[in-house]
Amino acid sequence: MNRYAKLLANRVVCLLMLLLLWIPVSSLGQSKPNIILFLVDDMGWQDCSVPFDQTKSPLNQRYHTPNMEKLASQGMKFINAYATPVCTPTRTSILTGMNAAHHGVTNWTSPQRNNNSDNPDTQLQAVDWNINGLSPVPNIPKTVYATPFPKLLADAGYHTIHVGKAHWASMGTPGANPHNMGFQVNIAGHAAGHPQSYLGKDNYGNLPGKTSAQAVPDLEEYFGTDSFLTEALTLEAIKALEQSVKNHQPFFLNMAHYAVHAPIMADKRFVQKYYDQGLDSIEARYASLVEGMDKSLGDIMHWLDQKGIASNTIIMFISDNGGLSLKPQRGGEAHTQNLPLRAGKGSVYEGGIRIPMLVKWPGKVRANSIAKQYVMVEDFFPSILAMAGIKNPKLVQTIDGKSFLSILNNPSLQDSTRSLVWHYPNKWIPNDGPGINYFSAIRQGNWKLVYNQRNGKKELYQLSTDLGELHDLSSQYPDMVNALSKTLSVQLRQWKAHMPIVINTGKLLPFPDEL
Amino acid sequence: MNRYAKLLANRVVCLLMLLLLWIPVSSLGQSKPNIILFLVDDMGWQDCSVPFDQTKSPLNQRYHTPNMEKLASQGMKFINAYATPVCTPTRTSILTGMNAAHHGVTNWTSPQRNNNSDNPDTQLQAVDWNINGLSPVPNIPKTVYATPFPKLLADAGYHTIHVGKAHWASMGTPGANPHNMGFQVNIAGHAAGHPQSYLGKDNYGNLPGKTSAQAVPDLEEYFGTDSFLTEALTLEAIKALEQSVKNHQPFFLNMAHYAVHAPIMADKRFVQKYYDQGLDSIEARYASLVEGMDKSLGDIMHWLDQKGIASNTIIMFISDNGGLSLKPQRGGEAHTQNLPLRAGKGSVYEGGIRIPMLVKWPGKVRANSIAKQYVMVEDFFPSILAMAGIKNPKLVQTIDGKSFLSILNNPSLQDSTRSLVWHYPNKWIPNDGPGINYFSAIRQGNWKLVYNQRNGKKELYQLSTDLGELHDLSSQYPDMVNALSKTLSVQLRQWKAHMPIVINTGKLLPFPDEL
Repeated sequence: MNRYAKLLANRVVCLLMLLLLWIPVSSLGQSKPNIILFLVDDMGWQDCSVPFDQTKSPLNQRYHTPNMEKLASQGMKFINAYATPVCTPTRTSILTGMNAAHHGVTNWTSPQRNNNSDNPDTQLQAVDWNINGLSPVPNIPKTVYATPFPKLLADAGYHTIHVGKAHWASMGTPGANPHNMGFQVNIAGHAAGHPQSYLGKDNYGNLPGKTSAQAVPDLEEYFGTDSFLTEALTLEAIKALEQSVKNHQPFFLNMAHYAVHAPIMADKRFVQKYYDQGLDSIEARYASLVEGMDKSLGDIMHWLDQKGIASNTIIMFISDNGGLSLKPQRGGEAHTQNLPLRAGKGSVYEGGIRIPMLVKWPGKVRANSIAKQYVMVEDFFPSILAMAGIKNPKLVQTIDGKSFLSILNNPSLQDSTRSLVWHYPNKWIPNDGPGINYFSAIRQGNWKLVYNQRNGKKELYQLSTDLGELHDLSSQYPDMVNALSKTLSVQLRQWKAHMPIVINTGKLLPFPDEL
Repeated sequence: MNRYAKLLANRVVCLLMLLLLWIPVSSLGQSKPNIILFLVDDMGWQDCSVPFDQTKSPLNQRYHTPNMEKLASQGMKFINAYATPVCTPTRTSILTGMNAAHHGVTNWTSPQRNNNSDNPDTQLQAVDWNINGLSPVPNIPKTVYATPFPKLLADAGYHTIHVGKAHWASMGTPGANPHNMGFQVNIAGHAAGHPQSYLGKDNYGNLPGKTSAQAVPDLEEYFGTDSFLTEALTLEAIKALEQSVKNHQPFFLNMAHYAVHAPIMADKRFVQKYYDQGLDSIEARYASLVEGMDKSLGDIMHWLDQKGIASNTIIMFISDNGGLSLKPQRGGEAHTQNLPLRAGKGSVYEGGIRIPMLVKWPGKVRANSIAKQYVMVEDFFPSILAMAGIKNPKLVQTIDGKSFLSILNNPSLQDSTRSLVWHYPNKWIPNDGPGINYFSAIRQGNWKLVYNQRNGKKELYQLSTDLGELHDLSSQYPDMVNALSKTLSVQLRQWKAHMPIVINTGKLLPFPDEL
């Protein structure tokens, strides 16, 4: 190189460095994948046409979810994915990476502050759980203080969008507002856990003098129209995503549908064929809610294709707990709505906690693959941070979840030593049901221990041969019962998990290893 | 240059071009100024301690707005700034650059779609104005279709934030949602024109069974707390701005306070001293609303200082119409609340249309300067686009406003040939008031013609000597009356402005030059 060339090269290096300095942090994120968490409310493990069991069940044949089928065919199906028995604990676990027994938001939060949603009990005193939910700022009474991952994503240059149900905290606390969780856009998320109405004609509940805390905010554009809530939310989500694309920003979309939570109202676009099949009316309406939700998934996938960004977008699909199985809210016989699983929402039996889960990540996750390893909702926190390339984030909480990225790379990975824990020291419904009200449970490998806090009864099931939890093996395998009781109790004590107090004696109910 | 140098130079040019392509549009905006439009609702020209007249009036002595004083001392005071007589027409003019007679949203829009907010009249039929407001998409019945400037700012890389009152369109139309106007963040903006309550303790109106269309959305975090609405909106605005700073994005903040619109509720932080002064109770509460609004301005200015971005941030302060002067909503004698100006909100007399206006632009606008040139709300559209460096924007509407940037550069600029037009062919209140219901007006130089559509009466005032519009000079200057009638009528016809129809005859009321 001669002198001129060197001089030129030096100048060019300087210029390049200046240019690099001039590029803001946010724009460096462009090579980062877009991430969509498609979170359905109260959807059961069998509420779709994708079989998550070995065979296609009658329920899989009832429901029509062609877009879930497509998503499954393009990515990985997790057939052992779990949530907590009800919504707020799951949503808090997703946002914090903590197990529910650890974050202490063990039941659903009331929209009203300082209001315990537990049902009263004559025998047991309500535990001191975090009734106001999750708080992204410290020193808010009766909340868990934690760093929600959307904040970290926003800091890393992501355009963070929440659409739909939030339900992370009570009104009058910072967590009631998704903006405080790090979402730059919030559409329709607030302190309520279900919509007052799915109908645009009802203004989604915003009717003067009739409005409850469940009236859906932010959708006035659709008031008085025929837009079903699921459709309105999808349109709004796509609108927000258009902005991400325009800004050349990677996005995180928390597409958190209110569907398929009660009130179980017919989505007119789909309900007729279910009525025509002779289904119970409520079940027909429920199936239409499911199909409307699936249409939303399809519309978003179609939009990604149109924009040419599907290949750089991760889509994760889950529900927040098992399907509702209570009568009369659901049709049919109580606790049969999640068959072959036992019971439903609110229960620590599989019907209450097992959820559908799909992950599409073009170029990373093999199409049509199946993962058998059990995973849990708190795993989304470390997984999403890993997807976004965020290392050593500053957190105020210690997380319990494990990233499932290694499973995405290799679906055959299995770890039967991991234990998953459920702890629900609350009274969800006025009368105890199957696995419902004051239960804990642990899964390790294919073994599952179910612990009834109220009466100390322990049940043991082998899920590989008895998915329906019909055959209690506790008397046959007392050592396994003891081992799981110990693991469960040690973990719960470490997390300072709550146990109900017996009103008459003033004593805590025993941890499972104390019996 | 030898061969190697040439080769190197070529490669470098290629590399640079690639790099430039890789830089997103948004990051190019970093040198662009931040822009804040601080828009107060229903604040009169005298509702502050900054004198907009030659001397400090008794009202200027009543109100305490130290932060407005500070802003005035750092920028330019426009002492002849105008809005339309009521809110939606002004807000639509700001967003579209069109005069109200042109965009046809001549009255305030009802939250309910297809609902004409005009009062019924025995003599005149309601005009076919755009009762559903502004629409950013075509073919929405009874709306004006236009390109709102926040869309253009967002496209140019601005982080566009709306906080507070929107009131651009009715529920069930796209314009009800600020997102559709190009705002990436919307906090508390919807179809309603005032808050149901300013109190966090009232959940800003969101009380089960009591909620009206005016319940303020998006603030559940503050429900049940002592946070006054003005304070909650300020905190939320700053939160959104923090994100702009983090993203290294220039921002546009539409800080559109609900204050000081009715319901005139006391802002507890400030009200006591006004009570102590022996003011009428309603007027004391009103003064506290004003001071709370001023505190918000101060908090935002303080935050800009703290972040070190005040020097690159334009702040513009205005109101959307004159101060309310109706009894019993206001205290004192009716139509004295804007003295020395005549009448108040709803009127084409100066009390209804003259507004406080301040502009701070460090390095561009001289501190403590005063502009005498009359300007109008539709001027904000071209001015803001010019501030953001947006040239030849793609618009579906023809704009009427004129950029005031030349005035910012040179406050002594005066153009007495420009004509400003007001046209309000609507019935705002059940009984006609001074300049209220079915009026038009025009200002050219210091002359102002007031036209009563109902009875054809014309009044002529010389504002330089008669700001209070007390001395009708129409019989002394018939040529001036004719000239202004002609200019006004030609303009109104060009805009296809509406005129009321007489019910008995079925005929349109005459344009002023037809009499």
